[in-house]
Amino acid sequence: MNASHPRPVYLDCDPGVDDALALGYLVASPAVRLVGVGTVYGNCSAEVATRNACDWLAVMGAPEVPVAMGASNPSRGEYRGAATWIHGERGTGAVTLPVSGTAPVSATAPELLVELARKHAGNLEIITVGPLTNLAQALAIEPGLPGMVKQLTMMGGAALHPGNISPVTEANVGKDPESARLVFQQPWPMTMVGLDVTMTNTLEEEHRLALQSSGSRSARLLAEVVDFYFDFHVDVYGRRCSALHDPLAAAIGAGGLVPSLAPLVDVDVDDTRGPGRGQTICSLGGKYRNYPPQDGAHCRVALEIGAPVAPHLVDVLSTLP
Amino acid sequence: MNASHPRPVYLDCDPGVDDALALGYLVASPAVRLVGVGTVYGNCSAEVATRNACDWLAVMGAPEVPVAMGASNPSRGEYRGAATWIHGERGTGAVTLPVSGTAPVSATAPELLVELARKHAGNLEIITVGPLTNLAQALAIEPGLPGMVKQLTMMGGAALHPGNISPVTEANVGKDPESARLVFQQPWPMTMVGLDVTMTNTLEEEHRLALQSSGSRSARLLAEVVDFYFDFHVDVYGRRCSALHDPLAAAIGAGGLVPSLAPLVDVDVDDTRGPGRGQTICSLGGKYRNYPPQDGAHCRVALEIGAPVAPHLVDVLSTLP
Repeated sequence: MNASHPRPVYLDCDPGVDDALALGYLVASPAVRLVGVGTVYGNCSAEVATRNACDWLAVMGAPEVPVAMGASNPSRGEYRGAATWIHGERGTGAVTLPVSGTAPVSATAPELLVELARKHAGNLEIITVGPLTNLAQALAIEPGLPGMVKQLTMMGGAALHPGNISPVTEANVGKDPESARLVFQQPWPMTMVGLDVTMTNTLEEEHRLALQSSGSRSARLLAEVVDFYFDFHVDVYGRRCSALHDPLAAAIGAGGLVPSLAPLVDVDVDDTRGPGRGQTICSLGGKYRNYPPQDGAHCRVALEIGAPVAPHLVDVLSTLP
Repeated sequence: MNASHPRPVYLDCDPGVDDALALGYLVASPAVRLVGVGTVYGNCSAEVATRNACDWLAVMGAPEVPVAMGASNPSRGEYRGAATWIHGERGTGAVTLPVSGTAPVSATAPELLVELARKHAGNLEIITVGPLTNLAQALAIEPGLPGMVKQLTMMGGAALHPGNISPVTEANVGKDPESARLVFQQPWPMTMVGLDVTMTNTLEEEHRLALQSSGSRSARLLAEVVDFYFDFHVDVYGRRCSALHDPLAAAIGAGGLVPSLAPLVDVDVDDTRGPGRGQTICSLGGKYRNYPPQDGAHCRVALEIGAPVAPHLVDVLSTLP
C-alpha cells in the first residue's frame, strides 16, 4: 500500500483456496486499498468463508479490513454444499489456519458494498470471485449502484472455453445464473475474467515452491494450502498444478496484469432450466475483424493475457508479511 | 467413381452455394457413389433446393442420381425464408443455372433415405449439410435407421467457435433444434463438422481462380457462383473469401480429408426457448488430457483438420465434367 493514491476495492469472495490467493494479492498490491470484503456461499458455506476471510486477513497483516457475511444461498434454490474435494474440508486445503480474534462486521455483504459505494462515490472498484448473489442483493438495496462504481472485475463465465460444472457453464455464474444475468445487464464497465484465461494460465510446482521458499509467512501458508488444490487438478490437467481463477481476476482488477485481448462485447447469461443453464453467452462473432464495436456493450471479455501470470502473482504474494 | 468399391452415400442438402460444392465433391470423389440426394428448406426453400439439386447434378454429369424433395418447414414453427444475401435470389449466387430436364422422384427425402438404408443395409453413409428435419422424419418412418447406417457426417453446430445465427448457434442446427437433438441422441457413429473447422478453413481468391481456370465446366460454374458468396463473407472475414461449410463436411464424409483432432464426446442440443437455443453443447472438458473416453459417446466433434482444405477441394472439383 505504498502507492500515493491506492484505489479503493471491495472484494466479494468465498475462500476457498484460490480466493485466498486473490485476497493476498489485493492486500499486497500497492495499487489498490482493500476497503471491504464480502463473503458468499460457493467453494464453502458463507459461514466458513467468513471465518476464513477474517483469519486470512489477520495472517496477511490486514485485520482492519472489514469483513461482512453475505448470502448463504443462491437467489433460487439452495446452496448445494462445499466443494471439499477441491478446497478441503474447511476451504483451506489440508491446512488449519491460525484462528484470529477478528469478527465480521454486523452489516451484511450487500449492505457493506452499498455503504462503501456511497462513501467512495464514483471511485469504488468491485472484484468478485464467487457467485454474484451479493451483487444482485446490493442492486435491490441501491438500484443506482452501477452509476456509483468505477468498474467491476468478475471471475466467472466461459466464452469459448469449456465450462467446469457443465460442458458450457462455469461455477460462479452457474451457481446463481439469475443473479449473474442481473449483474451483466447493469451498465457498469465490467471485465469478465473467465475460464478462457483462468484455465489457460496455471500455477505450476515451480511457482508453488517459490511461494514455499519465500520469506513471507503468508506466502508459505498459501503454498501449503495450494498443495491440496494441486491434487484436485491432476484430474483436470494430468499433472500437479492449478488453474488461476481468482488471483488472475484480482490481478486484472488491480491493474497488475492487463489482458492483451479483451473485446468489448454483449454478454447474456442463460437462466433457463435447459442444458445451457448458467452459460455466459458472449457475442464474439466479430473475431475475424478485430471485434468491431457493439452498441451498448459494456463488458470486456478477457480472452488472452499475453504475459506470464504465475511469476507476477508469486512476486506480489511474496511481499506479504 | 473409378474406385473398385465406392461406398454408397446419401446427401441431404439445401443448395445453396456451398451445398453445390459439396454436391460436386461427392459426384467427383472416386471413393463414394452418390446413391440419393434429399433436399430441405434452409439456404433457400425446399422447392428451389430441389430444382437446384437436379440442375447441378445435370451440369456435373450425374443426372441419374435420384433427387427427392424433403421438408419445407422445421419440426416446429415455419421456414423463415431464403438467405438471399448469402446464396443469391435462387441459391446459385448471381448465376442462372442451365435448366435440366431432370425431375425429382415421387418419394419424399425421408422416404428415399429409408429406402436406400434398407437397400444398402449396414453400408449406407449419410452426409447432411442442411437442417436435420428430413433425418428426424426418417427416424419416425424407420426407428431402426441408426442400426442400418454405417455413419453420419453432419455439417452443423459449433463447439468452441462462435455461432453464425446467434452468439452460440450455428444455422443448420439452429433452424430445427428439436430435430437436431433427436439426431444427436441416436446411437449411430456421427461426425460433427461444425464452425470450429468450417470457419477456420477458407476458400481464398487464389482457389476460386484455380476453379475458374480449370478445364472443368462445372468447376468454372462453381467459381462463378462462389463469387457472389465471397461478397457476403467480406463482412465476416474482412476480405473476399469464404467459409467452407458444406464441402468440408462432404470431404470428411467421403474420407478425402481426415480431421487431425476430432474427440469422441457427448453432444446435446439446446432446444429451450432461451438465449442458447440451437447450440450444440459438446463435452470438451477433457481437453487438457487428450479427451478421455466418455461412456456412450458416439459423436466425433471435428476441431482441427491439420491439412490444407481448399487445394484438396479444388483438385477434386476440377475432375468434374
